[in-house]
Amino acid sequence: MQNQKRVVIDKVLPQINCGDIYIKRVVNEIVAVEADVVVDGHDVIAASVLFKHENERKWTEQRMQLIDNDEWRASFTVEKQGFYSYKVQGWVDYALNWQHGIERKIDDDQRVISELLEGVTYLEPLLKNVSKEDKRYLETCIDLFQDEASYEKAIIEAKSERLHSIFTNHPEKHLVNESKELQVYVDRLKARFSTWYEFFPRSSSETEGQHGTFKDCERLLPRIQSMGFDTLYFPPVHPIGEVNRKGKNNTTEAKEGDVGSAWGIGSKHGGHKDIHPELGTINDFKRLVKKAKAHNIEIAMDYALQAAPDHPWVKDHPDWFKWRPDGTVQYAENPPKKYQDILPIYWESKDYKNLWKECLDILFHWIDCGINVFRVDNPHTKPYYFWNWIISEVKKKHPNVIFLAEAFTRPKVMHRLAKEGYTQSYTYFTWRNTKQEFIEYMTELTQTDASEYMRPNFWPNTPDINPYHLQGASEAMYLQRYALAATLSSNIGIYGPVFEQMIDQAIPGKEEYYMSEKFQICHYDWSEENKLTLLISKINAIRHEQEALQQTNNIKFCDIHNDNLIAFYKWNHDRTNELLIIISLDQYYPQHATVQLPLSDLKIEAGQRVQVSDLVTGSSYNWYDEWNYVELHPALPFHIFRINK
Amino acid sequence: MQNQKRVVIDKVLPQINCGDIYIKRVVNEIVAVEADVVVDGHDVIAASVLFKHENERKWTEQRMQLIDNDEWRASFTVEKQGFYSYKVQGWVDYALNWQHGIERKIDDDQRVISELLEGVTYLEPLLKNVSKEDKRYLETCIDLFQDEASYEKAIIEAKSERLHSIFTNHPEKHLVNESKELQVYVDRLKARFSTWYEFFPRSSSETEGQHGTFKDCERLLPRIQSMGFDTLYFPPVHPIGEVNRKGKNNTTEAKEGDVGSAWGIGSKHGGHKDIHPELGTINDFKRLVKKAKAHNIEIAMDYALQAAPDHPWVKDHPDWFKWRPDGTVQYAENPPKKYQDILPIYWESKDYKNLWKECLDILFHWIDCGINVFRVDNPHTKPYYFWNWIISEVKKKHPNVIFLAEAFTRPKVMHRLAKEGYTQSYTYFTWRNTKQEFIEYMTELTQTDASEYMRPNFWPNTPDINPYHLQGASEAMYLQRYALAATLSSNIGIYGPVFEQMIDQAIPGKEEYYMSEKFQICHYDWSEENKLTLLISKINAIRHEQEALQQTNNIKFCDIHNDNLIAFYKWNHDRTNELLIIISLDQYYPQHATVQLPLSDLKIEAGQRVQVSDLVTGSSYNWYDEWNYVELHPALPFHIFRINK
Repeated sequence: MQNQKRVVIDKVLPQINCGDIYIKRVVNEIVAVEADVVVDGHDVIAASVLFKHENERKWTEQRMQLIDNDEWRASFTVEKQGFYSYKVQGWVDYALNWQHGIERKIDDDQRVISELLEGVTYLEPLLKNVSKEDKRYLETCIDLFQDEASYEKAIIEAKSERLHSIFTNHPEKHLVNESKELQVYVDRLKARFSTWYEFFPRSSSETEGQHGTFKDCERLLPRIQSMGFDTLYFPPVHPIGEVNRKGKNNTTEAKEGDVGSAWGIGSKHGGHKDIHPELGTINDFKRLVKKAKAHNIEIAMDYALQAAPDHPWVKDHPDWFKWRPDGTVQYAENPPKKYQDILPIYWESKDYKNLWKECLDILFHWIDCGINVFRVDNPHTKPYYFWNWIISEVKKKHPNVIFLAEAFTRPKVMHRLAKEGYTQSYTYFTWRNTKQEFIEYMTELTQTDASEYMRPNFWPNTPDINPYHLQGASEAMYLQRYALAATLSSNIGIYGPVFEQMIDQAIPGKEEYYMSEKFQICHYDWSEENKLTLLISKINAIRHEQEALQQTNNIKFCDIHNDNLIAFYKWNHDRTNELLIIISLDQYYPQHATVQLPLSDLKIEAGQRVQVSDLVTGSSYNWYDEWNYVELHPALPFHIFRINK
Repeated sequence: MQNQKRVVIDKVLPQINCGDIYIKRVVNEIVAVEADVVVDGHDVIAASVLFKHENERKWTEQRMQLIDNDEWRASFTVEKQGFYSYKVQGWVDYALNWQHGIERKIDDDQRVISELLEGVTYLEPLLKNVSKEDKRYLETCIDLFQDEASYEKAIIEAKSERLHSIFTNHPEKHLVNESKELQVYVDRLKARFSTWYEFFPRSSSETEGQHGTFKDCERLLPRIQSMGFDTLYFPPVHPIGEVNRKGKNNTTEAKEGDVGSAWGIGSKHGGHKDIHPELGTINDFKRLVKKAKAHNIEIAMDYALQAAPDHPWVKDHPDWFKWRPDGTVQYAENPPKKYQDILPIYWESKDYKNLWKECLDILFHWIDCGINVFRVDNPHTKPYYFWNWIISEVKKKHPNVIFLAEAFTRPKVMHRLAKEGYTQSYTYFTWRNTKQEFIEYMTELTQTDASEYMRPNFWPNTPDINPYHLQGASEAMYLQRYALAATLSSNIGIYGPVFEQMIDQAIPGKEEYYMSEKFQICHYDWSEENKLTLLISKINAIRHEQEALQQTNNIKFCDIHNDNLIAFYKWNHDRTNELLIIISLDQYYPQHATVQLPLSDLKIEAGQRVQVSDLVTGSSYNWYDEWNYVELHPALPFHIFRINK
């Protein structure tokens, strides 16, 4: 026979995969917990959320409130990095139940002598728990309840608010039922709010044709900082393979002087723990990392688990690769495509324990050099359980570390990587163009379970993706794409020099850059300022000032009667910062429409004045109506309005 | 470090409460299983559903098909009563993966000597598993693959359909990942399709003022059978308490000759295992049960776990009741209401093991008398874990037993009882009136998780509920209510004599019958036939003929441009039986509109002829359009159309 816990707890939220997958938060965010809590019959019940940080032994209790339809709710704030556990408790509150019953009988003029005596049994156990003052009060009640002569006084105290409050604050929990323990992992703020800039350090030289170095990169730090970027992501900086090295434009035969793909890692100069000699030394790298920090910039490293044919691993650990019956090693291929400069790791290797250990050591090595952000190359081609393990091993020691999953692949695969522990994920933003597409995609990311475990990072372009809509596009299109990314998502990034300078030549019919920097050194005029760099800087500054842009999930699309205009309302956790953003999707013509203010969210009535201030131009407008006229021109195709009430 | 099972299985459906709650089916129904199955990288994977009946040791395997977006599906049929387990398996299919890769390379004119050699390693392990013929074929392939001289022949066989089919039928499963085991409980058909008739046996006498008996009830069986009812539900037939017996109209003082409430169970004549002497003997009851069976009618007993003050339990098992500090026993109350004729069971009794045993013995006692259907009174006032235990104990020995939960209470409580094992549930149908209400409620019951565990039973009235819309209503309203219940839900019931004869006098302002049969004997002219009895019989006959009406979940509402008309399409499992039902909700005026045929469900094009035959009137109409005119009159306010294509 079963236990006698009468209260049933069901549908505890947030909960992902029956609690097998933890949800994610950053420091000082709220976890709003909901659950169905029901009991048989009509007894009064109570429920609490219990939570504790992994380093704490004691649970903290937060009483839940009944909302409606047997649904209860309570919230708690996660103040520290690391894991928190939370669970829901429910119990029959016999004392409150007794008070509820006697109240109804007293109000019905029933004589409640026996009920008062019963009440004594709920008061007595509390004497040892309550304050001195409350104890005196309870003792008085106990006397009154047992003395028929003071019946009139007794029934007043039986119904008293004070007694109700003592019962509520000192619940005698009998036969408490508990939900499963669930977990939330808490990251530092950067997991949720980050602004990335990507360039190839080898293209950082001031002199055309010369291989850039980490020292050249130091020169660019003030510029990147002043533009408002806080994360500088470099493609791999390790020695580049010389065997089967790729030539310019991804040709199979490298010519003299061709630098090869930075992702073809490993040569006689070393592997994943080494620095490509032409970029500098490990000390140059450490110095750059340190200098970047002084500019409030973190260097993000590429973590690409694959090897060039001349990577030291191939000789030292042949078991980590797949060998074909003809005795050759298996290079990467996706027939008919061949990637002869890259050997994939053989994850089903019998020597996987040493392989995993080495993969972990690589991360520890760079963490020791000051790195706390890793952009992981193609994580979807490595086993999920491996990511689960390695991310968890790293974060146990280094909770500051952030992993961005570069998985441009099928939706369920991207979601699974996020569930295995990735801090951030690249997304399909790069290919979303129409208003309907943006609304659907943002709804999927922010209004479903995904919002609990997947943090999107929006990139208008990457070295791998020169999207069709940027090829031959006007400046307005670039402005739109950056404004969209930067206001829809709190994590964003650009492949910087190419984006700023609107370099868009593509391999015909493909979303690939012609003469891609992946296979050669490029030369940029790093001193160039243009409208794009100015507005990117301005938008980034606004993102730093406006909390509503430092998170992704608080978004609500507003009705606006024009398919070329998209409008949305964003707010911070306590709605002290509220924005209305309107972006034109038309790169050639002005567009106008009336936009609907979200009055109920703003807690205002139609007719009440609202001031909206454009944070880019400084213009202010007084609006009195629910629907308001807006007009955008390709010259400045967006409004970021601060709403002042 | 973790296992090396690369395939991840997620979102296995159907699945209720992470598998803690079993889903429900009846014999020969289908369980359609879906799951997300993903692997890292691009390897070819495979997935199966495995299922077995609780009496079987071996799993049966059904290969899943990839539908789209990494979602896989397979179905199995449950052929026997009892529990089945099911789970999803997924694995990398290295053999198929090899074939997929070599095909693409051969098509790209690559030379695949090494790949052929690799293929041999996938063929060899199969030799021991396959038929003689296939074995010879594989041996030929192995020879070809290793002989460069027969390269041209080898690459033809490497790509062959036959090899593909051998690989598919004899998967070498390595590192198989499995979902959690889930359970489905399979009932007999009646759990899904039943037609209930309720009357008080004490009102069955032909002579006014005389207490009816089981012998009188025998007389009524042919009538009930001919009307198409298969389940005859009696309020409690046990000795009725004499202490605090209720008088007519729920008065607290019974007068001489007052018969009391049948739910005030127990007196000097016995308790829950005994028969009220005025109804007859236990042998009379057994004879009635047997005779009913001969008329294809099952008697459903009331299972009401409570006691009159003079129930033998009160003396024999005082611990099963709650005693107040003043030494009196606690009667049922819901302040200010008092139910002095009923003592609730004290479920938190220390002697609960004996209490539970007795509760179970009561069920076994009546099952031994031929009863297989129990309508459980107020199950929501007893602990959920008790129901889980007792239903499971009964069904282990008597899988035919059906439990109907009489819980007219809050939604989550009703759902919880269904989750704990109830076969059927009373519903809110009794209070749903408008088209929008019906559509919303049916959507909740049939298009959400609830459809997996909760089987609704629709009652237009009960002795406890004389709904406002029936008070003073026309005959058309009664016809509408019965037609709605009987076509929306496959389980239905009426409180028969009162419904047929449109007895509707209520206690003013309440949904309670005036001079309720709950507290007195009523006299009916059981020979009466009227339009209602004729049409109820007709509808019941149609339900028996049309499989589409023998289930509840296959329903789709059709557009019909009139809020007083509701239209829906129903179908049986293989769509060999398709109905279009249209019901007017107006009891006074004719209503007309055009109704939209669900063309894509019917797999027909607009313009194609469809014949619809009214199963009540026999009229047929040929329809050629998607939208078709219909008109209903209060005289016959519904169409049940059979669709013939």
